[in-house]
Amino acid sequence: MKNLLDKVKGFAVCATKAGIKVSGKLDLGLIYTDEPVAAAAVFTQSKVVAAPVTYSRKNLKASKGRMRAIVVNAGNANACTGQTGMDNAAETAKLVAAGIGCKPTEVLICSTGIIGVQMPMEKMRAALPVLTKQKGGNGAEFTQAILTTDLVKKTASAGACGGTIAGVCKGSGMIAPNMATMLGFILTDIAIEPAVLQAALSAATEMSFNCVTVDGDTSTNDTVLCLASGKAGNKMIKAASGKDYEEFLAALKKVCYSLATQVAQDGEGATKLVVVNVTGAKSAKDAKLAGKTVSESPLVKTAMFGNDPNWGRIVAALGRSGCAMVPEKTNIRLCGKEIFAAGAPKPFNADALSKAMKKKQVVIDIELGLGKGAATLLTCDFSYDYVKINADYHT
Amino acid sequence: MKNLLDKVKGFAVCATKAGIKVSGKLDLGLIYTDEPVAAAAVFTQSKVVAAPVTYSRKNLKASKGRMRAIVVNAGNANACTGQTGMDNAAETAKLVAAGIGCKPTEVLICSTGIIGVQMPMEKMRAALPVLTKQKGGNGAEFTQAILTTDLVKKTASAGACGGTIAGVCKGSGMIAPNMATMLGFILTDIAIEPAVLQAALSAATEMSFNCVTVDGDTSTNDTVLCLASGKAGNKMIKAASGKDYEEFLAALKKVCYSLATQVAQDGEGATKLVVVNVTGAKSAKDAKLAGKTVSESPLVKTAMFGNDPNWGRIVAALGRSGCAMVPEKTNIRLCGKEIFAAGAPKPFNADALSKAMKKKQVVIDIELGLGKGAATLLTCDFSYDYVKINADYHT
Repeated sequence: MKNLLDKVKGFAVCATKAGIKVSGKLDLGLIYTDEPVAAAAVFTQSKVVAAPVTYSRKNLKASKGRMRAIVVNAGNANACTGQTGMDNAAETAKLVAAGIGCKPTEVLICSTGIIGVQMPMEKMRAALPVLTKQKGGNGAEFTQAILTTDLVKKTASAGACGGTIAGVCKGSGMIAPNMATMLGFILTDIAIEPAVLQAALSAATEMSFNCVTVDGDTSTNDTVLCLASGKAGNKMIKAASGKDYEEFLAALKKVCYSLATQVAQDGEGATKLVVVNVTGAKSAKDAKLAGKTVSESPLVKTAMFGNDPNWGRIVAALGRSGCAMVPEKTNIRLCGKEIFAAGAPKPFNADALSKAMKKKQVVIDIELGLGKGAATLLTCDFSYDYVKINADYHT
Repeated sequence: MKNLLDKVKGFAVCATKAGIKVSGKLDLGLIYTDEPVAAAAVFTQSKVVAAPVTYSRKNLKASKGRMRAIVVNAGNANACTGQTGMDNAAETAKLVAAGIGCKPTEVLICSTGIIGVQMPMEKMRAALPVLTKQKGGNGAEFTQAILTTDLVKKTASAGACGGTIAGVCKGSGMIAPNMATMLGFILTDIAIEPAVLQAALSAATEMSFNCVTVDGDTSTNDTVLCLASGKAGNKMIKAASGKDYEEFLAALKKVCYSLATQVAQDGEGATKLVVVNVTGAKSAKDAKLAGKTVSESPLVKTAMFGNDPNWGRIVAALGRSGCAMVPEKTNIRLCGKEIFAAGAPKPFNADALSKAMKKKQVVIDIELGLGKGAATLLTCDFSYDYVKINADYHT
């Protein structure tokens, strides 16, 4: 089957083994275009920011959102690497620019992997001149090259405005709202102005990637990039309103939400996806706070792993979350079954409900009864394997 | 050895098996005095509050901080139990009052255990008239009766102003700053006014119990109570200043800090105590935020369990904490060894440092280099057993 990225017109998608990963697996990807195309980005909100993030932010501004390439490596995050790290990011961009014939400022860079170790630049110097000669059509290998501890490849696509939107992403641990060790790459052939694309990407990210939490730990490198080649033949979308924009935004949201779901599902050690729907909150902010607190509660997450319909841990998480909540107005459903209402637990068949929780996806619906704020958070359960993966790993 | 509580003059400390715990273990404790004594309390900050908390808050106010008794049961939290729960708390106080000869409003109540289930009042009605006839000297059994999943008893004492301060507490899971499933009982024979005692207890709690975090999950029942009998013969402490007050406060802080340390050490599944010292923060609030985020990071906690000197996870937690931080000004020491400085990791012998981490106590020192804010957080590591205890437990 053709990789979804290869279906989007106007992009050459390439990948290779540069030798950055000790495993010798695919670890370097490149996406480039023949001419500058509209670009948008959302970056980590951490105060500790990796060199590629700083560099890409600067380039995106300098080129006014019109870029030629994305280069991404796995195996080394180029984070906490000081001025040498910045110099290495700049050299990487130069190598790409020389290979495809563009300015270094038209190149976006992403890195993921070990932090505090300098990039093996001799490997980049050997690999990039070869990689930039690839003609594309290599989406499947690109999708593989960006992974670290991920167990599965993550792709999604949707159609809109006579064109296509397709995305791939990576991420499995250190995942939290406001980005995570998450890299996302979304390509579209739909014609859209950079500023409008940025508005759409920010809105779609807010409802998707920023609602995934595996362990509350955000990373230094989190980035979602979107390039729009304009080859679909649609009328250029020039404003963040109107029918075409809404159609584009809906499709972009669909792609981002699907990718975010796949990230939560592939969380380190996860046995199931947990969807936390909050409605009736006093505000949207409160809804997200409530959902985030429930999603990140180790007690709730271990209960999900143990198939325990533990309404008390959900209520306790809500109570300490800081969101406005009144137990007597709160209603909680687990797998569709009401388990808490009017300040007290509702009688339920614990065995039957526990059995219902033994699924790949468990939904917790929380109605706070105080207003119209709503949010959906995506998380996973907390298993022995989460501890194993993260305790056995050594610096 | 005489239990520390029994060394404080003016209190009868009692305990019995009421049959609330299915195990049949000690589960009901009582502390009473012959006349009203100064009392102070700190309660959970959760918005979901158990009946005994609501009831005790009300009584403390009604009796202007002069109380006669504390009754505490384990095995049932009387939380999420509605009006029936409130009625049961009131009846419990009445039974105690009738037994020792005081007003129900002079009784403080604490409960810990399963939530959402009504108190087995027939057992309380049978046990309390017998328990209130005990003459005291039963501190060891009281200390045992308040435990739930705790593995060890927790006691501490200190001397001041010619008298004694002694405390016991329980807590092992669902422990977080701003209280937790934590019950603490502190007795002193030092003479001190109720309002001054309250000031001291609030200050001491802020630096101790409110700095413990096992899993970030606060409970509905968290309470620390302090009674002062005034039998030590010291000159009444009437103001929250001066030499005597400072001496009292220092001793109270010592007792609270020791108890808090014991709670973290006995965290569910914990193999070691982790002390996170933050200094040089822009503000005290920032220091606590930084310390709390590092202490609650599942990635940091699993690294501590795995004896992994993973500076990257500590830096990542600081970066996302929301506190002001500049990587280039941040300095991190683990077990006294500098591992991060000036925005980059410092070379260290990973094997030697990992070996140094195989202790009952690991200290992480974080200097942010931005101001004078400081905080110490107490936590524990995150082990397979934490997941086992909390996934195997069933509602």
